[in-house]
This record gives sequence, C-alpha cells and structure tokens, in this order.
Amino acid sequence: MKPESGYSPAKILSQSGATLIVLLVFLASTGKAQHLYSYVDPLIGSRGGGNVFVGPCCPFGMVKPGPDCSLHSTSGYVGDPTVPIMGFSQVHTSGTGGGPKYGNISLMPFMGDFSSTHLSSLRSDEVASLGYYSVNLKRWDVKVEITAAERVALYRCIFNKAGKAGVKIDAGFFLGEEPVPNYREAQQFVGSQVQILSDSSLDGYTRIRGGWNNGNTYTVYFYAIFDRPFVGYGTWKGEKIAPGIRTQYDSGEKTGAFLYFDSRGNDTIGVKVGISFISSLKAGHNIGAEVPGWDFSKVEQQARDKWESLFDRVVVDGTPDQKTMFYTALYHTMLMPVDRTGENPLWLSFKPYYDDFYTIWDTFRSCDPLITLIDPSRMVSIVNALLNIYEHDGYLPDGRSGNCNGRTQGGSNAEVVIADAYMKKLRGIDYDEALVAMLKDANIPPGGGQDKEGRGGLSDYNRLGYVSTKFVRAGTRTMEYSYDDFCIAEVAKGLGRYSIYRRFIRQSNNWKNLWRNIEDHGSRGFIMPKDESGAWVDSFQCNIQYRRRTYVRYTPLTEEWPLCVSWWSGFFYEATSWEYSLYVPQNVPELIKKCGGNKAFEKRLDTFFDNGYYHAGNEHDFLTSCLYHWIGRPDLSSRRTREIIDKRFTSAPDGLPGNDDSGAMSSWLAFHMMGIYPNAGQPYYLITSPFLKKTVLHLEDGAQFEILAKNLSDKNVYIQSATLDGRPFNQAWILHKDIVKGGMLVFNMGPRSSKWGDKIMSPTFR
Amino acid sequence: MKPESGYSPAKILSQSGATLIVLLVFLASTGKAQHLYSYVDPLIGSRGGGNVFVGPCCPFGMVKPGPDCSLHSTSGYVGDPTVPIMGFSQVHTSGTGGGPKYGNISLMPFMGDFSSTHLSSLRSDEVASLGYYSVNLKRWDVKVEITAAERVALYRCIFNKAGKAGVKIDAGFFLGEEPVPNYREAQQFVGSQVQILSDSSLDGYTRIRGGWNNGNTYTVYFYAIFDRPFVGYGTWKGEKIAPGIRTQYDSGEKTGAFLYFDSRGNDTIGVKVGISFISSLKAGHNIGAEVPGWDFSKVEQQARDKWESLFDRVVVDGTPDQKTMFYTALYHTMLMPVDRTGENPLWLSFKPYYDDFYTIWDTFRSCDPLITLIDPSRMVSIVNALLNIYEHDGYLPDGRSGNCNGRTQGGSNAEVVIADAYMKKLRGIDYDEALVAMLKDANIPPGGGQDKEGRGGLSDYNRLGYVSTKFVRAGTRTMEYSYDDFCIAEVAKGLGRYSIYRRFIRQSNNWKNLWRNIEDHGSRGFIMPKDESGAWVDSFQCNIQYRRRTYVRYTPLTEEWPLCVSWWSGFFYEATSWEYSLYVPQNVPELIKKCGGNKAFEKRLDTFFDNGYYHAGNEHDFLTSCLYHWIGRPDLSSRRTREIIDKRFTSAPDGLPGNDDSGAMSSWLAFHMMGIYPNAGQPYYLITSPFLKKTVLHLEDGAQFEILAKNLSDKNVYIQSATLDGRPFNQAWILHKDIVKGGMLVFNMGPRSSKWGDKIMSPTFR
Repeated sequence: MKPESGYSPAKILSQSGATLIVLLVFLASTGKAQHLYSYVDPLIGSRGGGNVFVGPCCPFGMVKPGPDCSLHSTSGYVGDPTVPIMGFSQVHTSGTGGGPKYGNISLMPFMGDFSSTHLSSLRSDEVASLGYYSVNLKRWDVKVEITAAERVALYRCIFNKAGKAGVKIDAGFFLGEEPVPNYREAQQFVGSQVQILSDSSLDGYTRIRGGWNNGNTYTVYFYAIFDRPFVGYGTWKGEKIAPGIRTQYDSGEKTGAFLYFDSRGNDTIGVKVGISFISSLKAGHNIGAEVPGWDFSKVEQQARDKWESLFDRVVVDGTPDQKTMFYTALYHTMLMPVDRTGENPLWLSFKPYYDDFYTIWDTFRSCDPLITLIDPSRMVSIVNALLNIYEHDGYLPDGRSGNCNGRTQGGSNAEVVIADAYMKKLRGIDYDEALVAMLKDANIPPGGGQDKEGRGGLSDYNRLGYVSTKFVRAGTRTMEYSYDDFCIAEVAKGLGRYSIYRRFIRQSNNWKNLWRNIEDHGSRGFIMPKDESGAWVDSFQCNIQYRRRTYVRYTPLTEEWPLCVSWWSGFFYEATSWEYSLYVPQNVPELIKKCGGNKAFEKRLDTFFDNGYYHAGNEHDFLTSCLYHWIGRPDLSSRRTREIIDKRFTSAPDGLPGNDDSGAMSSWLAFHMMGIYPNAGQPYYLITSPFLKKTVLHLEDGAQFEILAKNLSDKNVYIQSATLDGRPFNQAWILHKDIVKGGMLVFNMGPRSSKWGDKIMSPTFR
Repeated sequence: MKPESGYSPAKILSQSGATLIVLLVFLASTGKAQHLYSYVDPLIGSRGGGNVFVGPCCPFGMVKPGPDCSLHSTSGYVGDPTVPIMGFSQVHTSGTGGGPKYGNISLMPFMGDFSSTHLSSLRSDEVASLGYYSVNLKRWDVKVEITAAERVALYRCIFNKAGKAGVKIDAGFFLGEEPVPNYREAQQFVGSQVQILSDSSLDGYTRIRGGWNNGNTYTVYFYAIFDRPFVGYGTWKGEKIAPGIRTQYDSGEKTGAFLYFDSRGNDTIGVKVGISFISSLKAGHNIGAEVPGWDFSKVEQQARDKWESLFDRVVVDGTPDQKTMFYTALYHTMLMPVDRTGENPLWLSFKPYYDDFYTIWDTFRSCDPLITLIDPSRMVSIVNALLNIYEHDGYLPDGRSGNCNGRTQGGSNAEVVIADAYMKKLRGIDYDEALVAMLKDANIPPGGGQDKEGRGGLSDYNRLGYVSTKFVRAGTRTMEYSYDDFCIAEVAKGLGRYSIYRRFIRQSNNWKNLWRNIEDHGSRGFIMPKDESGAWVDSFQCNIQYRRRTYVRYTPLTEEWPLCVSWWSGFFYEATSWEYSLYVPQNVPELIKKCGGNKAFEKRLDTFFDNGYYHAGNEHDFLTSCLYHWIGRPDLSSRRTREIIDKRFTSAPDGLPGNDDSGAMSSWLAFHMMGIYPNAGQPYYLITSPFLKKTVLHLEDGAQFEILAKNLSDKNVYIQSATLDGRPFNQAWILHKDIVKGGMLVFNMGPRSSKWGDKIMSPTFR
C-alpha cells in the first residue's frame, strides 16, 4: 500500500539504540555470541507510514499486546511521543493500511479513583525490543512492561508512587471507531461484557464488526488474572460507573472493569491477560497452558527463543546495521498471518487455522516465498489453512481478518501461493483439492459487491478475456487474473489435468487483450481500459466527491486517486499503467516482444526508474527492478535494486517505504539483502548482488546452503563471477530445488558491471 | 413443502381431547366463557409430515422447549410413542422440512448415577396444550412439565420414586447430526462449554453450523437455575465423564453437566433455563427479567394471556372442531419468524430483529398477510427486521435461520412481503429504503452457489428475460421473479419512481418468455424449459445418483424428484409445469387469454383439480383454487377450496396436508375458514364461502369488521347474495382498506351455486 502521512522520527530511536549498545557492550564483555533476536528493532517501520506493530509477539502469534495512541492508527501505535497513550490492547495487526481492525481489550493503569474511562497519558522512556515493550506513563507515574506468549499477554505495572493504584480493563475499546457507525472500513461496536470472578480475576469479551475488510462480527474473549487480590473494584456500562458491581451483561453497550490496589510506592502489579476467539473459559485455559506462573523474564525469553530458532535458520554476516535491517525484516514477515489453530469459532477441524491474511495480493510476492524458504512446514500449515477456509467458507481468501474473508485487492492471488507451494514441492498439501479451490475462483463469480472473495468482474473476464470498465479495478484484475491463470495452469499440468492446463495457459495471455499500442514518454504499448464492446476508453468521469463532475483523460500515468476516485474504484489498484504494464511475471519474454524488443525494453525500464514511475511501497512493482534479467542485464537489476534500498530502506523508525503490509516490504528487502529474489508461483529465484557478506541457510531438511559475496564492499557491488559448489555458475537465477538440496554459491564482487549472468532468462521454468 | 412419510395417529389425540373435555366441563360449570387459547391443539400437524413444534411457546417466541425423539425430525418431535424421548431441548422450528436446525441445550432427568449421556426413555401420558407440555418418562418414572416465557423455559421434573435423582444438561446435543459432518443440510458441531457456577446454577453454550440453510455458525448460550441446591454434580467432555468437576472449557468437544438431588419420592425439582444468542450472562439476565420467581402456573398463564390477546382480535363462531382448527391455525402462523430483538450477536441496532424466516417463499402467500390483518404492528416490525438484515448482511433473506441467510427456494420473495405492506399502507416502514433493498435483489447477482440470498440466475433473467436451463430451478425462478418484479413496480409507482416502475412492470411479463404453445391433457400453453440460445428444451439428463444416466422427456407433468434430480436441481421447485403455469398472480386475465379464454381456462382448472395435479401441501398452488374468480365463477372457487379443506385438513394430529411451513398451511386454512383469501402483494382479498358462521375482526386501529354467514350449514355452502354495511355487495373481492375501516359483510348462504359475484375481477387493483 501507499505510504501515508507519517510522523518525523524522534527520540525513540536513540533510546532504542542505547539499549542495543548496552546489550552489545554486555555481550562483548561476556564474550558470548550475540543472539540474533537482539538485532530485531520493532520500531523500524513504526513511523513514516510503515504501520508496524511495536509490541511483543511470538512468531505468527495470536496475541499482540501494545500501546494504542490513536483510533486511526492501524497498529494502534503513533511514534510521536506528544500523542498520548490511551491504553494497551491485546490484538493488533502489523503494517496494514486502510481502516483499522482489532485493538481489543484495553488495559490501562491509573492512580486514584476511577471516574472516567479516558485515562490517556503522555509517555517517556519507551523501549521496544523483541518480546518486550515498556514505557513510562507520565500522567500516572506508572511504568508498564509487556511481554507475550502465543495467546497470553503478560503485564507488569510499576506504580512509582504510593497511594490508590488502579488498573482498567476496557471491553468497549477498539480501533477505528467513527462517529458514523457504518463509515467505510470503520470497526463497529456490537457488544461487550465483563464479570469479576474472584478477588484477583475477571473475564469478558468485546464483539466488533466491520473494519478494514467489512468483516462479519468477531468476538475477542479475555480472562485476566492479577498477581495479588484487589482491594476494591467496580465496573461500568455505557456512561454509568458502578463501584462494587461485579457483573455487566451484554446489552449492546460498552462495558469494562476497574480494579484497585494499595501501592506502597515502587510497587509492581502483574497481570496476565489470556485471549481467545472461542470463549472466556478458553482464554483462561490459554493462561494455564502457556503462562502458569508469574516469571516475566521466562515468558519473554520463551518468545525470544521461538524467534531465535527461526533466525538460526538464516545466519548472516554483515554490518550491525545490515543485521538489524535483515532480522527485523524476517521478524516483520512472520508476524502475520496469525496462527489461530484451536481458536476458530466458525467450524471444527483438525487442520490448522490462520487468520489475518492482509492481503495475499500484498504478501504472495515475497512474504510467502520467504516463509517457504525459512520454515516450509509453516507454509504447508498456512496453505492447508487456506484450503480449510475454502472448504468451509466457499472461497479462498485474498484478504481475511476477524474470521471473515473480505477486501480482495487485485484478484484471487491465493492461486499464486498454492502454485508457489506446488512448484517448490511442499509436501503435506492436497493439491487436487487445491486445484478445485482455484477453479472455484476462476469459474464462479462471487456476487454482491465482488470485493469479499473470488474474482470480481469474472463474468467479463471469462466472456471477453478481460475485465471491462463496467467493473472497478478492471486493469488490476485483468493483469492479476492472467497470472493467477498461469498458476492454475502450472498446477493442473503437474497433476496431469491437461484440458484444464490448456484452458488456463491460454487465459494466461489475457493481459494482451488490454495491450494498447500507444506511446507515452518514449515507450510504446500500455495496458489501457477497454469497455464491454471492445472499444478503448480514453477518459473517465470523476465522481462528485470533490464537487466537480469532469472527465479526466486516462493516460499511462493517470492516478485516479487522489485526483478523483479512490483506488478501489479506479482502473488500477494503487498503480498507474506504467507500473502494471510491466507486470507479466508469467511471460516476460513476450512482454519484451510487445514492448519492441530488448533495447526498447531496457529504455522503458530506465524511463520507469529514472522518471520516478516506480513506487517502492507498492507490491505490483516488486519484481520490476529485476526485469533487466530477461534482457541479460542482471547487473542493471542489481543497480536498480540497490538504488531503491539505499534510498528507501533504513534501520530507522521510518525505514520502510510505506505500509509494511504484513511484512511485504520487509521480505522484499530480506530477499535482496541475501541476493536472491523469487518470482512467486515459479520455482526459481533471480540473483542480484547481495548486501550481506554471507548468508547461511539451514534448511528444514537438514541441508545447508551458503551464499558468499567475496570482496563485497560499498564499492564492490557488482557480481564479476560466481561458482556453485566450486563449479562456475554463470546464470543469474537458481532453482529452488538447487537451494534446498544444499550447496555453496560464491560471488566475486567488483566495482563495475560485468558480463556475468548475461545468459538470457528462459521464458518458463516448468 | 411436500408431506413426508408420517406416523399414524394414535392415543395422544384422545389424551389431548380428554384434557379439553375436562376444561370444557369446568368452564361450563363456572359459567365463564371459554378462553380462545383453550381451542389450540398443539398436536395438530405433529404427525403425517406437518412437522409442527408441540411444546409451549409465546407468540413469535425465541424459546421453544420440547421433546426430541429423533435427530432427523425438524421439530425434534415424533408422535409415535414407541419412539423414545432423548431429552428436551430449548430451541426448535415449527413445520419445517429439509434438514433440521437447532435442538440446542438438551435437558433430561434421570435416576441413579450418571454413566452415559444416552438417557432416552419411552413415554406415556403426553399432554400438550397452549403454553404447556407434559409427559411421563417411563424409564425413569419421572414426569416432566414444561412452560415457556419469551426467552426462558421453565421445567418441573416430578421424580415419583425416592432415590438419587439427576438432571442432565447437554450442551453437545443438536438435531440433524450426521455421521458425515458435511452431509447436505446436516447441522455440524463446532464447540460447547459448561460451567457449574454455584450450588444451584450453571451456564454454558453450544456452537453449531450448517443445518437446513447451510448457515454460518450460531451459538446458543444458556443459564440454568435449579430451585434447590445440588447434592452432587459432575460434567463431561467427549467420552470422559468427570464427577465433581465444575468446568469444561471449549476445546471443540461435546460437553455437558449432570446434577444430583435427593428425591424422597413424588419430589418436584424446578429448573429455569434462560437462553440467549448473545452470552450466558445475558441468558441469566433473561431469567431475571422474565421469570424471577418459581410460579410455574404464572408463567404458563402469561404465555396464554399473550396468545389470548391476539386471538381476541379474531373472535369466531363455529363448531368446537372448527374453532380448534381455526385458533390452532392462528397459533401456528405466529410461531415464526422469531422475535430476537436484543439477541442479535451480529450487529447493534435499535430496530427489531427477527430470525427464522423459513422461508419467505413459503410464508409470503398467506402467513404474512394473516399477521398483517391480525397484528399489523408486528408485521411492521418484521418488515423493518428484513430491511435491517438487508442493511447489514447485504441482501434481504428468503430463508434465514441461525442468524444467517440461506436456502432461497424460489426467488427473492421478500419483495412480495414489502409490496403487501406497502399496498396495505402499513406505517412505520422506510419504503424508499425498501425499494433500494428490492432493487439490490433485482440488479446484483448473489454469486457463489446462488441459493444463499438474492436471485439465482439473475444474469440470465436480466439478459434474456427468463432464466435458462443453465441454472437450476429456472422455471420457478422465472415465474417468481416476474411476480417479484410486479411487486417492485407497484412500490416504485407509489413512490413516484416512474422509470423504475416502467422497467419492472415490463419485466412482470417475463413469464410469457417461457410460455410454450404445446398441449397436454386437453389444455394448451405451458411454462417450459428454454436454453440460453432461446431453444426449447425437450428432455433433461438424469444425474447418476440412481446409477443410470438417461434422458427424461420434460412434459408439463414431469416431476424431477424422486424420478431423477432433487427439487433443488429441477426446473420447478416442488412442482410440475401444470402447477406453476397457473401461477401469474400479477395478471390472471392475461394468463386466461394465453390459455385460450374463459371456457378453456375453466376446463383447464377442472382438469387440474379433477386429475389430482393440485397439491394442497405446496405453496405455489395456494391461489389456484381461487382462479375461478377471474372468470366470474367464485362459486367454483368456493367449491374447490371446500373440497381441499374437507379432504386434507382436520383437527387430528395428521390434520395438515404437509409440512406446515412456518404456518403456511395453517394460515391458508384460517383465511378460507373466514371466507377471505389474500393475493399477497396486492391490496385485496378474494371472497369464498366461509366455514365459520361468524368472524369478528377487532382491528388494531379500533375498528371492527364482521363477516356473517347467514344460514350456513353443511349443505348451505354457496353464497347467494351479500351486503356490506347493509348495502348489496355483489363483487367477490374486497379491498384491505374496506376491511380495516370496519364494517359488516353479510352473506346469505344456500345449497346451490348462484350468480353472486360473477362480476369479472378487474385485472389490477393499483
């Protein structure tokens, strides 16, 4: 997604940096190797529109406890410390754009009598490291420390002052609340409940609908246990505060509870908040199963160990800054989708259940391939979860959150995820069923608003071979469906379903039906809008939102938004034709031919990058910097990629070029730092100059694959030659199977472009 | 729906009859007028496929506690006393066919130690009256008595023997469970939970998906309070019984609790079971709000009073048997949809919420018009609930249950309900929004399997003017959509939206596009299947379910089921072309013309009835016996209607001609007993010979309308002449507005057909 207006970086970095330095000094003094997890800086991407979640979290963890500073922040967090903290809710998304989702069950300490649910405080001394977050709430002089198990958040509230100490647990809080309840993408309150169960425990839930994906109602249940008895308590419903009342049943109003303690000063109160999507009892069970005791450090260390076991699979060498960027990128990639196995309130199944696909259009290109490389078993679980969703909800999701499909951005890109798994030979997936699920997308229109699931505009696509301007996002849909169809064809061919293969390999050429032979800025041929009758559409009518009703000429550089209509209603989603006209991952040679051959294509790519038509923050452009590979110029791919990373990625809080999109930006970066980049859905990686001196992949099957960049320096950024297992290796791509079987890929780096890898890419790798 | 294989009537009637006689004797002795509710016999329609619910229930009440004798019975009940009772669950449907729904939270008393969840018992002494059900469980020698508030069931378990008395509360029980979990229309278990809260209370829930309408997951929460402390208790999960364990959290297994008491013999234990679709606390709140004490008779009387206040609006005179049939019919009509206002877990709204529309295709013809006549405020609430569902779920339902749209039978018949309300000038409905909701049905294909909501085959219908054989139920859909379009046109015209009116009044002729000029059994012209190209389809291919793959010739008498495909996959839903070719309620004069004029039409109707092509148990035939009106022969309408009622309706347990379908059969009967019958969606009633000597309608606005059939007897069944407010009244129809303004309609009855009412029906009443 596009970056949104962000906040300027501030003190927080130096604090985080300070922590790191202390840690480094400590480790240096003990002589112990630094844990890889210590390189993770959760604040990267927390400003400048990255929208990442900054609190503690296990890999793919269900609970994401962290500060909420704005109802309009999708992660809850706002880096600017002049924006107060409203509370700490237990469920968040990471890196997302659009309307918020979650932000449920908000905890907030306070001092004195509870007289209002509004307890916002300014902050200081904010610290975020992997598995840990702490902050000082200036208004209350309370330090809050948080760590997280899979489904349980653990808090320590240190009340510095003596007096009446309080903790609020708010079942009425959620992100994205709007005064107009049905406001587009606003979360909407449905109900809530709390009950104080004993002198140290309570439970309840919050029930919310809508939000980013216009989802059905979801319910977040909690069970909270304090490490000492309350000395007083109360609850509230709506505006009515009820001291001493234990129970508020759900009558469609906001409820919550407040608990009092005596603080002698510098007094720590611990709280465990178990979360469940099933029931409060299940949330309580989750506490018993995951965090039976009160050892904060142990829970923190368990989270770190889980991450470390993943990071251990990709041991890299580089500068501390590079390592910070790299491991933080891996971290961001594995925050979502969320493993909710055993927490699915919608159906009973012994298969894994994942939620928060946000969206596959964003993640299929680099997130899923990175998970496949590091943790293929996890990817098998995720694909099986997708198929399980198809079985029970009827369609594979593109977007899914709050247990509901919704917000299909481009097309039915789960096809690419399945094909990627199939082509990389992941075992433990019923590919016959997967093919049926993909065919559902390709054959059965989803109906209604056509943005919940499946393929919007499918009736056009299957009749005309393109989506006409009768439908929104017609350009994006046509381009994505063409590639999705290629992915179906691959799987069908592999399964011996040749008639299906023939249909879909033919349809994978559908992008050509929107290829219009016009010139723009020296390049010829663009994907342009066409109406149902087959006539090209030269202009479109603006909506009247901006108080004018004018026709806008559609050119390859036209952006519908903010000029006129929203991205959702435009011809391309978050893109111009310059961008999507280069998106033909199924057949780049044919694209090159259409563009007028190698020279014209090179010039076109140069124009694209030099004129700033490229957008690092938009996923459809992810492959574009590598397209030089197909004209035998991987050196130019490397140069462009390096320019992008140098310009748009840093280890600072604003170090991501836009919404991280569930790790999309981060995983793109991580691949390129290693020097390989996938063409998702196909079984190979393109090779570009690594940023890291060394990458050692400890593969799940036991093999080890090493990528070594000899003589790599700030100047020596071009591959001069390469060997694989000691033998000369002159192709600028490598098959997935050649990585997973283990080996050593060595690059000799030098300061200038070389002829290495000028072997033209073969058109397909089937 | 079609009648299903039933059980032969047995002893139960005489028991019920005995109760009635005792009551009558009592009332006669006190000189007090008999309460109208005492005429209700809940057992009518409990055998022979009527599938009615036999337990106690408030009007449109959420809780329907009653015996479950078979997992395959949609009401839970089986009249045959050789079939044991498994337990008494709290939520049921009435009169439905297809796969079961609900049957949640099963209570069962027992004696001795709890060693199995299977506690089935044979029964004796079954008594069912309005607001009351009791039975003796022979195996345990326990009498169970049940009454019901809106959301709370109240039980009295009388343990005749001394010893260890037990009550099981089973959160794992539900109707329609199948060994194959995804079996079509089977309910599927998702999860359950129980916890014992004190020495006399417990709560929990059951979570179920699927069932009849392939619905999403719904959760039925309960809170149960006993009138004395347990002396022991236990719970179970799956196969594991856990004596003394209070809590079973939801891990996707079946759970329940058993409570022990000491019985001294002839010992009564009272249980209140509050139900909620929101939470267990809300279920507990419902108990407090509705049944704070333990007075069984008071709760029973409250239910009776609620019904009585509705029955008081239609005071009739006739034989006791006629009154039994009539008030039972009213009772059946007002069991569903279910008022769940404040119990909607899906969204927050201050508008009413109703569930269990089962389906509108079944109910729009006579149920909804009868509710409109008796209780227009209720109908306004129901229509507003439909619009509220449209607002939040995107489509008006045809079928809806378990908080989910699903099982569209014919078409988007909510249009008729809205038009009926509009044409009868019900106030308090936003008809502008209603028009938008109807246009959604008419414009936006529902996608997916096309049987959840909206109009399946709409792309054909809007392009070709009919639904082609590419889609299932193409004949039914075309015929219903044509009438739905007429209903849209009416409302659009009334609202001054003339371009919409013109489109839909044109489309209301779409039935003609399937009119094929062929002859069958002496009549000419039938609605027949046509393919996408416009060619008539003469035969269809059987599916291979019955191990043959043959072509079957499609004739006006062809029934696809059980011959070949299911009703859902045939050309007509539950009908032959003979039946649906007579279904043009929007323009009978044009239908008569198509059939060859009045003489041919009369002959056609005679053939239809004499040859047994009419099916009393199928809703599309409901208007057919009145079609003689349009050729000036209301006497023949009366004769045919009388034949049907005499042959197919009685006051016995098998006294309904098929599934009652949420009161569809019952309301059809009730109208004809009064002597008026609606053409739903249009503002008039057709007049046929009454069965009741007198009907006094006490209308909501205060007016009174009386229908008097002078000289009515078994022989004098034809209207000879009529007066309205003393003036001669010679038309065989009356406008709704002329009824609600009050008045007196007097018929002089005689033994022979007369010329009365031979004025030809005007084509429309707009």
